[in-house]
Amino acid sequence: MELLPPIDHAARVRRVTERLADPDAVDALLILDLVDVRWLTGFTGSNGWVVVRGGDVVLGTDGRYGDRARAETAGSGARVIAETSRERLVERMDEALLGAASVGLDDSSTPYRTWTGLAARHTLRPMSSPIAEERQVKDDAEIARIARAAAVTDAALAEVEPMLFAGPVTEADVRNELEYRMRLHGADDRSYATIVASGPEHAARPHHEVTRRRIVTADTIVIDVGALVDGYHSDMTRSWVVGEPDPLQRDWFDLVARAQAAGLAALRPGVAARDVDDASRAVFREAGVEEWFLHGTGHGVGLVIHEAPFHGPSSADTIREGNVVTVEPGLYRGGFGGVRIEDLAVVRSSGPEVLTHHPTRPFPR
Amino acid sequence: MELLPPIDHAARVRRVTERLADPDAVDALLILDLVDVRWLTGFTGSNGWVVVRGGDVVLGTDGRYGDRARAETAGSGARVIAETSRERLVERMDEALLGAASVGLDDSSTPYRTWTGLAARHTLRPMSSPIAEERQVKDDAEIARIARAAAVTDAALAEVEPMLFAGPVTEADVRNELEYRMRLHGADDRSYATIVASGPEHAARPHHEVTRRRIVTADTIVIDVGALVDGYHSDMTRSWVVGEPDPLQRDWFDLVARAQAAGLAALRPGVAARDVDDASRAVFREAGVEEWFLHGTGHGVGLVIHEAPFHGPSSADTIREGNVVTVEPGLYRGGFGGVRIEDLAVVRSSGPEVLTHHPTRPFPR
Repeated sequence: MELLPPIDHAARVRRVTERLADPDAVDALLILDLVDVRWLTGFTGSNGWVVVRGGDVVLGTDGRYGDRARAETAGSGARVIAETSRERLVERMDEALLGAASVGLDDSSTPYRTWTGLAARHTLRPMSSPIAEERQVKDDAEIARIARAAAVTDAALAEVEPMLFAGPVTEADVRNELEYRMRLHGADDRSYATIVASGPEHAARPHHEVTRRRIVTADTIVIDVGALVDGYHSDMTRSWVVGEPDPLQRDWFDLVARAQAAGLAALRPGVAARDVDDASRAVFREAGVEEWFLHGTGHGVGLVIHEAPFHGPSSADTIREGNVVTVEPGLYRGGFGGVRIEDLAVVRSSGPEVLTHHPTRPFPR
Repeated sequence: MELLPPIDHAARVRRVTERLADPDAVDALLILDLVDVRWLTGFTGSNGWVVVRGGDVVLGTDGRYGDRARAETAGSGARVIAETSRERLVERMDEALLGAASVGLDDSSTPYRTWTGLAARHTLRPMSSPIAEERQVKDDAEIARIARAAAVTDAALAEVEPMLFAGPVTEADVRNELEYRMRLHGADDRSYATIVASGPEHAARPHHEVTRRRIVTADTIVIDVGALVDGYHSDMTRSWVVGEPDPLQRDWFDLVARAQAAGLAALRPGVAARDVDDASRAVFREAGVEEWFLHGTGHGVGLVIHEAPFHGPSSADTIREGNVVTVEPGLYRGGFGGVRIEDLAVVRSSGPEVLTHHPTRPFPR
């Protein structure tokens, strides 16, 4: 496999440092969320914090991770502190924050106990993570990783798809083969617990958990699957009918395909995320089936499988160039089953660049 | 496969209700941690809260999960509230807490933003989760699930072990087969990201992340693997040398086996967890190799892979009958590799009942 392009962490540090140069900004930024830590510095360990202050980046971690942290963060310019003593590591964080007039900290993810402990020694300012906001726009190195993850998923699904029609097979069988084969094709892991939902009840649940149910003729099948490559996720859904589809099944597949195409077509920089949702939703509304569409139309994908922007009816997010997002309308009804089609696309000024290539071929034509 | 015995959630509700009957206890308990919610009520969805108050249990969740919540929690006696509107669901929580003189809430896991929102309307009392404390002692139904998970891991490792010596194989190959085969043997999933650490550098890292390194003669290999069955985890580690061991390798395997046996032998109800750690550690100390033992001797296992009690040198926990814990001493040195042996055992008054049965046979005898 081709090498993945390196990630320019120094550029990210510059972006965040520029934010802090704003006179209204906080004096220092404390980052405790490990995804934010990874995005900014490259550190992938399970324990660490980062302080960004006046152009400097300090990463603190425990003794297990000193060497790894130095190796992984070399490109970011971060200064690594590794302390075996937990107390000493806290002291080093206090030193890095000493005298800061205000310390920005994400209050949506920091536990109350941690917050009150820190607030006794520092002037904390609650804020939403500015790193999470920066993370929404992907650079080329990130897109290369997500595209690789999508390609691995395509390859695995191409191998596993014939199982659906070849004889007795359970949801779990299909899931097991998909996750195994994504790794054989180079995935570090699955992106999330693969969904294989079959038949009148299971396929009617958008977030079905795989069972040992046997797939039978006339079932709808929904498979939602992605891979993980160097920390980055992919996300794709395809749906099928086993055997000859009935008229309602044909109808729903046609509606979902049209809704999905409409959502993709709406994906332009500057558009409100809720308008992407509405582009898909309008197809269902006009057909009188909107009540069977049980979720939003999509979400961003990156180091986290579900991240901003979220395109649902009440979203306040805006689609930006460089977002990598899903478009995944679906229809679900207990007793009938379900249909969902999901692609992953990079938002470009010229239109969406779709990364998921496995063909949508729900039934014999 | 034999059916797993049902879990008696009503008994758990009684245990927690009895705690609240104490005059010093809080008036109501608010549970936001989803593992605690699952343990108490059986609900496995990804969004929900529980209020325990005066013998009543109320579970709130969103519209996706209403039917599932009612089905899963029937045995607990919980009253299920499902609301599609997020705002309405918050109002229902407020109703359940209305007039409570004090509301206990785990401050170590609740985000600051959530806490301050709730504290504006209710008298919160920060506490460590009493459910997490109850969770430490496992009942027979839980032990049956953990034992099944351990058996599945035994079966997969028995099949995969010959790969280590049969020819060219990478860490990732071994990991992929183990995780695939645990599922074929009935696991719902792996318990955690399987560790396959080989050779002088990788095996020297207790928490190595699997690579595509090829395993070669003279390597030490450490495999740390477990399965997930109905939400419950297992945990086991075995180590090997490829080819004929050198004297130092023999020496380290012997020391680790002795340290592990000593830790297991110390596992009795009422013992301080740090004394279990010290029983293993003393073997290394007396051999002058304690500096190569880089972690604590073990931890509890249940709905979470690492949970109390923790047996490390500074632990304040106590071992109790019904704990299910690991005993996993190891030695690690860059340039040499590593050795760890880990078993999972139920603490019984008669001594530890070991659940992990795959034989420890590090090299040809």
